[in-house]
Amino acid sequence: MTEFNIKYSDYQKIFEEHLSNFCDKLVCEPNILKESLIYSLKLGGKRIRPVLMLAFADLLGLDKSVMLNYALALELIHTYSLVHDDLPEMDNDDYRRGKPSNHKVFGVGNAVLAGDGLLNTAYSVLFGECFNGNEHVSASKYICDCAGIGGMIAGQSADLFHENDNGVDENILNFIHLNKTAKLIMAACVPPSILCGGKYYSEIKTFARDLGFLFQLTDDVLDVEGSFESMGKSIGKDGIEGKYTAVRLYGLNECKLRADLLCDNCVKMLEGIAGDTEFLKNTVYFVRQRIN
Amino acid sequence: MTEFNIKYSDYQKIFEEHLSNFCDKLVCEPNILKESLIYSLKLGGKRIRPVLMLAFADLLGLDKSVMLNYALALELIHTYSLVHDDLPEMDNDDYRRGKPSNHKVFGVGNAVLAGDGLLNTAYSVLFGECFNGNEHVSASKYICDCAGIGGMIAGQSADLFHENDNGVDENILNFIHLNKTAKLIMAACVPPSILCGGKYYSEIKTFARDLGFLFQLTDDVLDVEGSFESMGKSIGKDGIEGKYTAVRLYGLNECKLRADLLCDNCVKMLEGIAGDTEFLKNTVYFVRQRIN
Repeated sequence: MTEFNIKYSDYQKIFEEHLSNFCDKLVCEPNILKESLIYSLKLGGKRIRPVLMLAFADLLGLDKSVMLNYALALELIHTYSLVHDDLPEMDNDDYRRGKPSNHKVFGVGNAVLAGDGLLNTAYSVLFGECFNGNEHVSASKYICDCAGIGGMIAGQSADLFHENDNGVDENILNFIHLNKTAKLIMAACVPPSILCGGKYYSEIKTFARDLGFLFQLTDDVLDVEGSFESMGKSIGKDGIEGKYTAVRLYGLNECKLRADLLCDNCVKMLEGIAGDTEFLKNTVYFVRQRIN
Repeated sequence: MTEFNIKYSDYQKIFEEHLSNFCDKLVCEPNILKESLIYSLKLGGKRIRPVLMLAFADLLGLDKSVMLNYALALELIHTYSLVHDDLPEMDNDDYRRGKPSNHKVFGVGNAVLAGDGLLNTAYSVLFGECFNGNEHVSASKYICDCAGIGGMIAGQSADLFHENDNGVDENILNFIHLNKTAKLIMAACVPPSILCGGKYYSEIKTFARDLGFLFQLTDDVLDVEGSFESMGKSIGKDGIEGKYTAVRLYGLNECKLRADLLCDNCVKMLEGIAGDTEFLKNTVYFVRQRIN
Protein backbone atom coordinates (compact mmCIF):
# COMPACT_ATOMS: atom_id res chain seq x y z
CA MET A 1 0.00 0.00 0.00
CA THR A 2 1.15 3.50 -0.79
CA GLU A 3 1.26 6.21 1.87
CA PHE A 4 -1.85 7.68 0.26
CA ASN A 5 -3.75 4.39 0.51
CA ILE A 6 -2.80 3.99 4.16
CA LYS A 7 -3.96 7.49 5.03
CA TYR A 8 -7.18 7.14 3.03
CA SER A 9 -7.94 3.89 4.77
CA ASP A 10 -7.16 5.44 8.19
CA TYR A 11 -9.70 8.19 7.55
CA GLN A 12 -12.20 5.62 6.34
CA LYS A 13 -11.70 3.58 9.52
CA ILE A 14 -12.23 6.59 11.78
CA PHE A 15 -15.44 7.35 9.94
CA GLU A 16 -16.67 3.73 9.78
CA GLU A 17 -16.21 3.40 13.52
CA HIS A 18 -18.26 6.55 14.13
CA LEU A 19 -20.94 5.34 11.72
CA SER A 20 -20.98 1.92 13.33
CA ASN A 21 -21.48 3.42 16.81
CA PHE A 22 -24.26 5.55 15.42
CA CYS A 23 -25.99 2.52 13.88
CA ASP A 24 -25.57 0.47 17.07
CA LYS A 25 -27.20 3.20 19.16
CA LEU A 26 -29.96 3.96 16.68
CA VAL A 27 -33.34 3.78 18.41
CA CYS A 28 -35.96 3.32 15.74
CA GLU A 29 -39.19 1.40 15.38
CA PRO A 30 -40.60 -0.44 13.49
CA ASN A 31 -37.68 -2.74 12.83
CA ILE A 32 -38.10 -2.64 9.04
CA LEU A 33 -37.41 1.11 9.09
CA LYS A 34 -34.26 0.66 11.17
CA GLU A 35 -33.07 -2.23 9.00
CA SER A 36 -33.62 -0.34 5.77
CA LEU A 37 -31.67 2.71 7.01
CA ILE A 38 -28.77 0.60 8.23
CA TYR A 39 -28.79 -1.58 5.08
CA SER A 40 -28.02 1.40 2.86
CA LEU A 41 -25.66 3.11 5.31
CA LYS A 42 -23.57 -0.06 5.56
CA LEU A 43 -23.40 -0.80 1.83
CA GLY A 44 -20.06 0.91 2.06
CA GLY A 45 -18.58 2.84 -0.82
CA LYS A 46 -15.49 5.01 -0.95
CA ARG A 47 -16.74 7.38 1.78
CA ILE A 48 -15.00 10.11 -0.16
CA ARG A 49 -17.06 12.93 1.38
CA PRO A 50 -16.24 12.00 5.00
CA VAL A 51 -12.59 11.41 4.01
CA LEU A 52 -12.36 14.86 2.40
CA MET A 53 -13.98 16.48 5.41
CA LEU A 54 -11.58 14.85 7.85
CA ALA A 55 -8.58 15.67 5.64
CA PHE A 56 -9.55 19.36 5.49
CA ALA A 57 -10.08 19.36 9.26
CA ASP A 58 -6.51 18.04 9.63
CA LEU A 59 -5.12 20.53 7.15
CA LEU A 60 -6.74 23.46 8.99
CA GLY A 61 -5.73 22.18 12.42
CA LEU A 62 -9.30 21.35 13.56
CA ASP A 63 -9.78 18.48 15.95
CA LYS A 64 -11.08 15.63 13.75
CA SER A 65 -13.63 14.64 16.41
CA VAL A 66 -15.34 18.01 15.84
CA MET A 67 -15.96 16.99 12.23
CA LEU A 68 -17.27 13.47 12.77
CA ASN A 69 -20.94 14.33 13.21
CA TYR A 70 -20.81 16.62 10.19
CA ALA A 71 -19.28 13.77 8.18
CA LEU A 72 -22.02 11.47 9.47
CA ALA A 73 -24.75 13.94 8.52
CA LEU A 74 -23.28 14.37 5.06
CA GLU A 75 -23.05 10.62 4.50
CA LEU A 76 -26.69 10.29 5.67
CA ILE A 77 -27.64 12.88 3.05
CA HIS A 78 -25.55 11.21 0.33
CA THR A 79 -27.06 7.81 1.21
CA TYR A 80 -30.65 9.14 1.13
CA SER A 81 -29.97 10.60 -2.31
CA LEU A 82 -28.80 7.21 -3.62
CA VAL A 83 -31.83 5.40 -2.16
CA HIS A 84 -34.27 7.82 -3.80
CA ASP A 85 -32.21 8.03 -6.99
CA ASP A 86 -32.34 4.24 -7.45
CA LEU A 87 -36.18 4.19 -7.32
CA PRO A 88 -37.95 2.80 -10.41
CA GLU A 89 -39.32 6.18 -11.49
CA MET A 90 -36.00 7.91 -10.92
CA ASP A 91 -32.81 6.22 -12.19
CA ASN A 92 -34.33 2.75 -11.77
CA ASP A 93 -31.22 0.96 -10.53
CA ASP A 94 -31.59 -2.53 -9.13
CA TYR A 95 -28.01 -2.64 -7.89
CA ARG A 96 -25.92 -0.38 -5.72
CA ARG A 97 -22.36 -1.22 -4.73
CA GLY A 98 -22.89 -4.73 -6.13
CA LYS A 99 -25.88 -5.48 -3.91
CA PRO A 100 -29.62 -5.13 -4.48
CA SER A 101 -30.69 -1.52 -4.04
CA ASN A 102 -32.85 -0.53 -1.07
CA HIS A 103 -36.19 -0.73 -2.88
CA LYS A 104 -35.38 -4.20 -4.25
CA VAL A 105 -34.91 -5.45 -0.68
CA PHE A 106 -37.57 -3.48 1.22
CA GLY A 107 -40.03 -2.40 -1.48
CA VAL A 108 -40.59 1.05 -2.97
CA GLY A 109 -42.79 2.40 -0.16
CA ASN A 110 -40.24 1.53 2.50
CA ALA A 111 -37.39 2.87 0.36
CA VAL A 112 -39.15 6.24 0.06
CA LEU A 113 -39.46 6.31 3.85
CA ALA A 114 -35.86 5.11 4.34
CA GLY A 115 -34.64 8.01 2.19
CA ASP A 116 -36.84 10.47 4.08
CA GLY A 117 -35.60 9.03 7.36
CA LEU A 118 -31.93 9.30 6.37
CA LEU A 119 -32.38 12.91 5.25
CA ASN A 120 -34.29 13.92 8.36
CA THR A 121 -31.80 12.18 10.67
CA ALA A 122 -28.94 14.14 9.09
CA TYR A 123 -30.58 17.32 10.35
CA SER A 124 -31.27 15.91 13.78
CA VAL A 125 -27.51 15.21 14.02
CA LEU A 126 -26.66 18.73 12.78
CA PHE A 127 -29.05 20.49 15.17
CA GLY A 128 -27.14 18.70 17.93
CA GLU A 129 -23.94 20.40 16.67
CA CYS A 130 -25.63 23.80 16.45
CA PHE A 131 -25.62 24.15 20.23
CA ASN A 132 -21.89 24.88 19.89
CA GLY A 133 -22.34 28.35 18.43
CA ASN A 134 -22.96 30.36 15.30
CA GLU A 135 -20.08 28.94 13.25
CA HIS A 136 -21.65 25.52 13.76
CA VAL A 137 -25.01 26.85 12.63
CA SER A 138 -23.34 28.33 9.52
CA ALA A 139 -21.54 25.07 8.73
CA SER A 140 -24.82 23.14 9.10
CA LYS A 141 -26.76 25.59 6.99
CA TYR A 142 -24.06 25.36 4.30
CA ILE A 143 -24.47 21.57 4.13
CA CYS A 144 -28.27 21.93 4.08
CA ASP A 145 -28.21 24.42 1.23
CA CYS A 146 -25.78 22.29 -0.81
CA ALA A 147 -28.19 19.36 -0.45
CA GLY A 148 -31.35 21.30 -1.21
CA ILE A 149 -33.34 22.99 -3.94
CA GLY A 150 -30.43 25.32 -4.69
CA GLY A 151 -28.09 22.33 -4.75
CA MET A 152 -28.27 18.58 -5.20
CA ILE A 153 -32.06 18.36 -5.50
CA ALA A 154 -32.02 21.03 -8.20
CA GLY A 155 -29.37 19.02 -10.03
CA GLN A 156 -31.37 15.80 -9.80
CA SER A 157 -34.46 17.61 -11.00
CA ALA A 158 -32.64 19.05 -14.02
CA ASP A 159 -31.10 15.63 -14.71
CA LEU A 160 -34.58 14.07 -14.78
CA PHE A 161 -36.06 16.93 -16.78
CA HIS A 162 -33.44 16.66 -19.54
CA GLU A 163 -33.66 12.90 -19.99
CA ASN A 164 -34.15 12.24 -23.70
CA ASP A 165 -33.55 15.89 -24.45
CA ASN A 166 -31.99 15.86 -27.91
CA GLY A 167 -29.96 19.01 -27.70
CA VAL A 168 -27.15 18.99 -25.17
CA ASP A 169 -25.95 22.39 -24.12
CA GLU A 170 -22.86 23.16 -22.07
CA ASN A 171 -24.70 25.54 -19.72
CA ILE A 172 -27.30 22.95 -18.82
CA LEU A 173 -24.67 20.24 -18.41
CA ASN A 174 -22.66 22.52 -16.10
CA PHE A 175 -25.81 23.28 -14.08
CA ILE A 176 -26.50 19.56 -13.64
CA HIS A 177 -22.91 18.64 -12.74
CA LEU A 178 -22.44 21.57 -10.38
CA ASN A 179 -25.63 20.89 -8.49
CA LYS A 180 -26.08 17.15 -8.70
CA THR A 181 -22.50 16.27 -7.82
CA ALA A 182 -20.18 19.16 -6.99
CA LYS A 183 -22.44 20.67 -4.30
CA LEU A 184 -22.12 17.64 -2.00
CA ILE A 185 -18.33 17.63 -2.50
CA MET A 186 -18.39 21.32 -1.53
CA ALA A 187 -20.53 20.34 1.49
CA ALA A 188 -17.65 18.04 2.48
CA CYS A 189 -14.73 20.44 2.01
CA VAL A 190 -16.09 23.87 2.97
CA PRO A 191 -17.52 23.29 6.51
CA PRO A 192 -14.06 22.80 8.09
CA SER A 193 -13.16 26.23 6.69
CA ILE A 194 -16.38 27.73 8.10
CA LEU A 195 -15.60 26.27 11.52
CA CYS A 196 -12.17 27.95 11.30
CA GLY A 197 -13.71 31.36 10.67
CA GLY A 198 -13.53 31.13 6.87
CA LYS A 199 -9.84 30.15 6.56
CA TYR A 200 -8.96 29.62 2.84
CA TYR A 201 -12.69 29.72 2.10
CA SER A 202 -12.46 30.68 -1.55
CA GLU A 203 -9.53 28.35 -2.39
CA ILE A 204 -11.30 25.41 -0.73
CA LYS A 205 -14.64 26.18 -2.36
CA THR A 206 -13.07 26.36 -5.82
CA PHE A 207 -11.06 23.19 -5.17
CA ALA A 208 -14.22 21.35 -4.08
CA ARG A 209 -16.27 22.58 -7.02
CA ASP A 210 -13.65 21.46 -9.53
CA LEU A 211 -13.13 18.14 -7.77
CA GLY A 212 -16.91 17.69 -7.96
CA PHE A 213 -16.88 18.36 -11.71
CA LEU A 214 -13.98 15.93 -12.06
CA PHE A 215 -15.91 13.32 -10.09
CA GLN A 216 -18.94 13.62 -12.36
CA LEU A 217 -16.81 13.64 -15.52
CA THR A 218 -15.09 10.40 -14.50
CA ASP A 219 -18.53 8.99 -13.60
CA ASP A 220 -19.79 9.74 -17.10
CA VAL A 221 -16.68 8.12 -18.60
CA LEU A 222 -17.00 5.06 -16.34
CA ASP A 223 -20.61 4.59 -17.42
CA VAL A 224 -19.14 3.96 -20.88
CA GLU A 225 -15.81 2.31 -20.08
CA GLY A 226 -16.38 0.77 -16.64
CA SER A 227 -17.60 -2.71 -15.72
CA PHE A 228 -20.37 -3.94 -13.42
CA GLU A 229 -17.72 -5.87 -11.44
CA SER A 230 -15.72 -2.80 -10.49
CA MET A 231 -18.62 -0.30 -10.32
CA GLY A 232 -21.12 -2.54 -8.51
CA LYS A 233 -23.95 -1.01 -10.49
CA SER A 234 -25.38 -1.26 -14.00
CA ILE A 235 -23.20 0.21 -16.75
CA GLY A 236 -24.23 1.94 -19.98
CA LYS A 237 -27.47 3.17 -18.44
CA ASP A 238 -26.84 6.83 -19.25
CA GLY A 239 -27.00 6.09 -22.95
CA ILE A 240 -30.06 3.86 -22.67
CA GLU A 241 -31.94 6.47 -20.65
CA GLY A 242 -30.90 9.34 -22.88
CA LYS A 243 -29.06 11.07 -20.03
CA TYR A 244 -27.49 14.42 -20.54
CA THR A 245 -23.81 13.45 -20.08
CA ALA A 246 -20.38 14.92 -20.70
CA VAL A 247 -19.49 11.99 -22.96
CA ARG A 248 -22.48 12.78 -25.12
CA LEU A 249 -21.58 16.45 -25.38
CA TYR A 250 -17.78 16.29 -25.67
CA GLY A 251 -16.97 12.69 -26.65
CA LEU A 252 -14.69 10.40 -24.64
CA ASN A 253 -11.36 11.95 -25.63
CA GLU A 254 -12.29 15.51 -24.84
CA CYS A 255 -13.77 14.34 -21.51
CA LYS A 256 -10.39 12.96 -20.56
CA LEU A 257 -8.62 16.19 -21.55
CA ARG A 258 -11.12 18.18 -19.52
CA ALA A 259 -10.60 15.85 -16.57
CA ASP A 260 -6.85 16.53 -16.71
CA LEU A 261 -7.52 20.25 -16.77
CA LEU A 262 -9.80 20.02 -13.72
CA CYS A 263 -7.08 18.00 -11.99
CA ASP A 264 -4.58 20.78 -12.62
CA ASN A 265 -7.00 23.40 -11.31
CA CYS A 266 -7.58 21.44 -8.11
CA VAL A 267 -3.85 21.07 -7.50
CA LYS A 268 -3.30 24.78 -8.18
CA MET A 269 -5.92 25.68 -5.54
CA LEU A 270 -4.20 23.41 -3.01
CA GLU A 271 -0.88 25.12 -3.71
CA GLY A 272 -2.41 28.35 -2.39
CA ILE A 273 -2.97 26.76 1.00
CA ALA A 274 -0.21 26.60 3.62
CA GLY A 275 0.37 23.19 5.16
CA ASP A 276 0.71 19.59 4.02
CA THR A 277 -1.68 19.18 1.09
CA GLU A 278 -0.02 16.01 -0.25
CA PHE A 279 -2.89 13.72 0.74
CA LEU A 280 -5.48 16.00 -0.85
CA LYS A 281 -3.44 16.22 -4.05
CA ASN A 282 -3.32 12.45 -4.21
CA THR A 283 -7.07 12.34 -3.59
CA VAL A 284 -7.50 14.40 -6.74
CA TYR A 285 -5.39 11.89 -8.75
CA PHE A 286 -7.33 9.07 -7.10
CA VAL A 287 -10.61 10.55 -8.37
CA ARG A 288 -9.07 11.09 -11.81
CA GLN A 289 -7.91 7.48 -12.07
CA ARG A 290 -10.74 5.75 -10.24
CA ILE A 291 -12.36 2.67 -11.71
CA ASN A 292 -15.33 2.69 -9.34
CA MET B 1 -69.05 33.99 11.42
CA THR B 2 -68.44 33.17 15.05
CA GLU B 3 -65.65 34.81 17.02
CA PHE B 4 -63.72 31.53 16.70
CA ASN B 5 -64.07 31.48 12.93
CA ILE B 6 -62.87 35.07 12.66
CA LYS B 7 -59.81 34.41 14.81
CA TYR B 8 -59.00 31.15 12.99
CA SER B 9 -59.22 32.90 9.68
CA ASP B 10 -57.05 35.78 10.98
CA TYR B 11 -54.31 33.32 11.92
CA GLN B 12 -54.68 31.61 8.55
CA LYS B 13 -54.33 34.94 6.76
CA ILE B 14 -51.16 35.86 8.67
CA PHE B 15 -49.68 32.50 7.75
CA GLU B 16 -50.85 32.54 4.12
CA GLU B 17 -49.25 35.94 3.63
CA HIS B 18 -45.95 34.67 5.03
CA LEU B 19 -46.15 31.56 2.85
CA SER B 20 -47.01 33.62 -0.19
CA ASN B 21 -44.00 35.90 0.34
CA PHE B 22 -41.83 32.84 0.74
CA CYS B 23 -43.12 31.36 -2.52
CA ASP B 24 -42.70 34.66 -4.37
CA LYS B 25 -39.07 34.93 -3.29
CA LEU B 26 -38.22 31.27 -3.87
CA VAL B 27 -35.17 31.00 -6.10
CA CYS B 28 -35.17 27.54 -7.59
CA GLU B 29 -34.25 25.99 -10.91
CA PRO B 30 -35.33 24.09 -12.96
CA ASN B 31 -38.80 25.56 -13.18
CA ILE B 32 -40.55 22.20 -12.86
CA LEU B 33 -39.03 21.77 -9.38
CA LYS B 34 -40.18 25.22 -8.29
CA GLU B 35 -43.66 24.69 -9.73
CA SER B 36 -44.08 21.32 -8.07
CA LEU B 37 -43.11 22.68 -4.64
CA ILE B 38 -45.43 25.65 -4.94
CA TYR B 39 -48.28 23.53 -6.35
CA SER B 40 -48.44 21.44 -3.21
CA LEU B 41 -47.75 24.31 -0.80
CA LYS B 42 -50.61 26.31 -2.29
CA LEU B 43 -53.18 23.48 -2.34
CA GLY B 44 -54.36 25.04 0.88
CA GLY B 45 -55.92 23.02 3.64
CA LYS B 46 -56.86 24.05 7.16
CA ARG B 47 -53.30 25.09 8.08
CA ILE B 48 -54.10 23.79 11.54
CA ARG B 49 -50.46 23.37 12.55
CA PRO B 50 -49.48 26.98 11.76
CA VAL B 51 -52.71 28.20 13.41
CA LEU B 52 -51.98 26.22 16.60
CA MET B 53 -48.41 27.50 16.65
CA LEU B 54 -49.47 31.13 16.33
CA ALA B 55 -52.22 30.69 18.93
CA PHE B 56 -49.76 29.25 21.47
CA ALA B 57 -47.33 32.08 20.70
CA ASP B 58 -50.15 34.53 21.53
CA LEU B 59 -51.13 32.65 24.66
CA LEU B 60 -47.54 32.68 25.97
CA GLY B 61 -46.96 36.31 25.02
CA LEU B 62 -44.46 35.60 22.25
CA ASP B 63 -44.30 37.94 19.29
CA LYS B 64 -46.13 36.09 16.49
CA SER B 65 -43.53 37.17 13.96
CA VAL B 66 -40.97 35.06 15.87
CA MET B 67 -43.08 31.98 15.14
CA LEU B 68 -43.75 32.54 11.44
CA ASN B 69 -40.67 30.78 10.08
CA TYR B 70 -41.22 27.86 12.42
CA ALA B 71 -44.80 27.63 11.17
CA LEU B 72 -43.51 27.77 7.60
CA ALA B 73 -40.95 25.03 8.25
CA LEU B 74 -43.61 22.84 9.85
CA GLU B 75 -46.00 23.33 6.94
CA LEU B 76 -43.15 22.49 4.53
CA ILE B 77 -42.62 19.24 6.46
CA HIS B 78 -46.36 18.47 6.58
CA THR B 79 -46.64 19.14 2.85
CA TYR B 80 -43.66 16.93 1.96
CA SER B 81 -45.25 14.11 3.97
CA LEU B 82 -48.49 14.41 1.98
CA VAL B 83 -46.64 14.43 -1.36
CA HIS B 84 -44.70 11.25 -0.50
CA ASP B 85 -47.70 9.66 1.21
CA ASP B 86 -49.82 10.06 -1.94
CA LEU B 87 -47.28 8.19 -4.11
CA PRO B 88 -48.55 5.02 -5.83
CA GLU B 89 -46.50 2.67 -3.67
CA MET B 90 -47.45 4.48 -0.49
CA ASP B 91 -51.12 5.48 0.05
CA ASN B 92 -51.70 5.78 -3.71
CA ASP B 93 -53.97 8.82 -3.63
CA ASP B 94 -54.78 10.56 -6.91
CA TYR B 95 -56.47 13.48 -5.18
CA ARG B 96 -55.47 15.84 -2.43
CA ARG B 97 -57.69 18.70 -1.31
CA GLY B 98 -59.94 18.07 -4.31
CA LYS B 99 -57.14 18.50 -6.85
CA PRO B 100 -54.83 16.00 -8.55
CA SER B 101 -52.03 15.02 -6.20
CA ASN B 102 -48.46 16.11 -6.94
CA HIS B 103 -47.37 12.93 -8.75
CA LYS B 104 -50.48 13.01 -10.97
CA VAL B 105 -49.45 16.46 -12.21
CA PHE B 106 -45.65 16.20 -12.27
CA GLY B 107 -44.98 12.44 -12.40
CA VAL B 108 -43.65 10.16 -9.67
CA GLY B 109 -39.96 11.04 -10.10
CA ASN B 110 -40.60 14.76 -9.77
CA ALA B 111 -42.94 14.18 -6.82
CA VAL B 112 -40.22 12.28 -4.98
CA LEU B 113 -37.88 15.23 -5.56
CA ALA B 114 -40.58 17.76 -4.63
CA GLY B 115 -41.07 15.99 -1.30
CA ASP B 116 -37.31 15.85 -0.72
CA GLY B 117 -37.06 19.53 -1.63
CA LEU B 118 -39.86 20.57 0.74
CA LEU B 119 -38.31 18.60 3.61
CA ASN B 120 -34.83 19.96 3.00
CA THR B 121 -36.07 23.53 2.64
CA ALA B 122 -37.80 23.27 6.03
CA TYR B 123 -34.37 22.77 7.60
CA SER B 124 -32.79 25.55 5.62
CA VAL B 125 -35.46 27.86 7.09
CA LEU B 126 -34.89 26.50 10.62
CA PHE B 127 -31.08 26.85 10.44
CA GLY B 128 -31.75 30.51 9.68
CA GLU B 129 -33.66 30.77 13.00
CA CYS B 130 -30.92 28.93 14.91
CA PHE B 131 -28.66 31.97 14.75
CA ASN B 132 -30.91 33.48 17.45
CA GLY B 133 -29.60 31.27 20.23
CA ASN B 134 -29.88 27.92 21.95
CA GLU B 135 -33.63 28.05 22.62
CA HIS B 136 -34.10 28.42 18.88
CA VAL B 137 -31.83 25.43 18.24
CA SER B 138 -33.87 23.42 20.78
CA ALA B 139 -37.17 24.41 19.18
CA SER B 140 -35.82 23.45 15.74
CA LYS B 141 -34.45 20.13 16.96
CA TYR B 142 -37.81 19.39 18.59
CA ILE B 143 -39.60 19.87 15.26
CA CYS B 144 -36.95 17.77 13.47
CA ASP B 145 -37.26 14.89 15.92
CA CYS B 146 -41.08 14.95 15.75
CA ALA B 147 -40.83 14.64 11.96
CA GLY B 148 -38.18 11.95 11.92
CA ILE B 149 -37.50 8.29 12.54
CA GLY B 150 -38.61 8.65 16.16
CA GLY B 151 -41.74 10.49 15.01
CA MET B 152 -43.80 10.86 11.86
CA ILE B 153 -41.61 8.69 9.62
CA ALA B 154 -41.73 5.87 12.21
CA GLY B 155 -45.53 6.20 12.24
CA GLN B 156 -45.75 6.06 8.45
CA SER B 157 -43.46 3.06 8.37
CA ALA B 158 -45.57 1.20 10.94
CA ASP B 159 -48.73 2.20 9.07
CA LEU B 160 -47.30 0.67 5.88
CA PHE B 161 -45.96 -2.39 7.67
CA HIS B 162 -49.33 -3.24 9.23
CA GLU B 163 -51.39 -2.89 6.05
CA ASN B 164 -53.46 -6.05 5.71
CA ASP B 165 -52.36 -7.19 9.14
CA ASN B 166 -55.31 -9.22 10.41
CA GLY B 167 -54.87 -8.70 14.12
CA VAL B 168 -55.34 -5.12 15.30
CA ASP B 169 -53.79 -4.39 18.65
CA GLU B 170 -54.26 -1.24 20.75
CA ASN B 171 -50.52 -0.80 21.39
CA ILE B 172 -49.68 -0.84 17.71
CA LEU B 173 -52.57 1.48 16.88
CA ASN B 174 -51.42 3.91 19.57
CA PHE B 175 -47.87 3.77 18.20
CA ILE B 176 -49.10 4.60 14.71
CA HIS B 177 -51.44 7.41 15.81
CA LEU B 178 -48.91 8.95 18.21
CA ASN B 179 -46.14 9.01 15.63
CA LYS B 180 -47.90 9.43 12.32
CA THR B 181 -50.22 12.21 13.46
CA ALA B 182 -49.76 13.44 17.01
CA LYS B 183 -46.03 14.17 16.69
CA LEU B 184 -46.55 16.90 14.06
CA ILE B 185 -49.30 18.46 16.21
CA MET B 186 -46.82 18.42 19.10
CA ALA B 187 -44.28 20.01 16.74
CA ALA B 188 -46.80 22.84 16.30
CA CYS B 189 -47.71 23.44 19.95
CA VAL B 190 -44.52 22.77 21.92
CA PRO B 191 -41.94 25.07 20.19
CA PRO B 192 -43.58 28.27 21.50
CA SER B 193 -43.17 26.85 25.01
CA ILE B 194 -39.51 25.99 24.33
CA LEU B 195 -38.90 29.54 23.10
CA CYS B 196 -40.40 30.78 26.42
CA GLY B 197 -37.95 28.70 28.45
CA GLY B 198 -40.29 25.72 28.83
CA LYS B 199 -43.38 27.58 30.11
CA TYR B 200 -46.28 25.10 30.61
CA TYR B 201 -44.20 22.52 28.74
CA SER B 202 -45.86 19.41 30.11
CA GLU B 203 -49.45 20.75 29.88
CA ILE B 204 -48.91 21.85 26.29
CA LYS B 205 -47.21 18.61 25.30
CA THR B 206 -50.06 16.52 26.74
CA PHE B 207 -52.65 18.80 25.14
CA ALA B 208 -50.93 18.47 21.75
CA ARG B 209 -50.56 14.70 22.00
CA ASP B 210 -54.25 14.24 22.83
CA LEU B 211 -55.34 16.70 20.16
CA GLY B 212 -53.22 14.67 17.73
CA PHE B 213 -54.94 11.45 18.77
CA LEU B 214 -58.30 13.20 18.41
CA PHE B 215 -57.31 14.41 14.95
CA GLN B 216 -56.43 10.89 13.80
CA LEU B 217 -59.56 9.39 15.38
CA THR B 218 -61.80 11.84 13.53
CA ASP B 219 -59.79 11.12 10.39
CA ASP B 220 -60.50 7.40 10.73
CA VAL B 221 -64.20 8.15 11.29
CA LEU B 222 -64.34 10.52 8.31
CA ASP B 223 -62.81 7.87 6.08
CA VAL B 224 -66.02 5.90 6.77
CA GLU B 225 -68.62 8.67 7.16
CA GLY B 226 -67.15 11.55 5.13
CA SER B 227 -67.62 12.45 1.49
CA PHE B 228 -65.20 13.19 -1.36
CA GLU B 229 -66.84 16.61 -1.73
CA SER B 230 -66.03 17.76 1.80
CA MET B 231 -62.75 15.84 2.24
CA GLY B 232 -61.28 16.54 -1.22
CA LYS B 233 -59.73 13.08 -1.27
CA SER B 234 -60.84 9.50 -1.82
CA ILE B 235 -63.03 8.02 0.94
CA GLY B 236 -63.23 4.45 2.22
CA LYS B 237 -59.62 3.77 1.24
CA ASP B 238 -58.57 2.62 4.72
CA GLY B 239 -60.90 -0.36 4.49
CA ILE B 240 -59.91 -1.22 0.93
CA GLU B 241 -56.21 -1.08 1.78
CA GLY B 242 -56.61 -3.03 4.99
CA LYS B 243 -55.35 -0.10 7.09
CA TYR B 244 -54.95 -0.46 10.80
CA THR B 245 -57.59 2.05 11.94
CA ALA B 246 -59.40 2.98 15.13
CA VAL B 247 -62.76 2.23 13.49
CA ARG B 248 -61.60 -1.29 12.75
CA LEU B 249 -60.42 -1.84 16.32
CA TYR B 250 -63.15 -0.07 18.31
CA GLY B 251 -66.09 0.34 15.93
CA LEU B 252 -67.65 3.69 15.03
CA ASN B 253 -69.57 4.27 18.27
CA GLU B 254 -66.68 3.65 20.60
CA CYS B 255 -64.49 5.87 18.40
CA LYS B 256 -66.90 8.73 18.99
CA LEU B 257 -66.91 8.13 22.76
CA ARG B 258 -63.13 8.05 22.76
CA ALA B 259 -63.06 11.27 20.75
CA ASP B 260 -65.24 12.95 23.41
CA LEU B 261 -62.89 11.74 26.12
CA LEU B 262 -59.84 13.12 24.29
CA CYS B 263 -61.72 16.41 23.89
CA ASP B 264 -62.24 16.57 27.65
CA ASN B 265 -58.59 15.82 28.31
CA CYS B 266 -57.45 18.59 25.97
CA VAL B 267 -59.75 21.10 27.64
CA LYS B 268 -58.57 20.02 31.09
CA MET B 269 -54.95 20.63 30.08
CA LEU B 270 -55.84 24.11 28.83
CA GLU B 271 -57.51 24.88 32.15
CA GLY B 272 -54.12 24.45 33.82
CA ILE B 273 -52.70 27.31 31.76
CA ALA B 274 -53.15 30.95 32.85
CA GLY B 275 -54.44 33.28 30.12
CA ASP B 276 -57.16 33.31 27.50
CA THR B 277 -57.43 29.74 26.20
CA GLU B 278 -60.90 30.19 24.68
CA PHE B 279 -59.66 30.02 21.08
CA LEU B 280 -57.65 26.87 21.73
CA LYS B 281 -60.65 25.22 23.43
CA ASN B 282 -62.76 26.00 20.40
CA THR B 283 -60.03 24.59 18.17
CA VAL B 284 -60.41 21.30 20.04
CA TYR B 285 -64.19 21.32 19.37
CA PHE B 286 -63.48 22.28 15.77
CA VAL B 287 -61.27 19.20 15.34
CA ARG B 288 -63.89 17.04 17.08
CA GLN B 289 -66.66 18.23 14.76
CA ARG B 290 -64.70 18.67 11.56
CA ILE B 291 -66.07 17.28 8.32
CA ASN B 292 -62.83 17.67 6.38
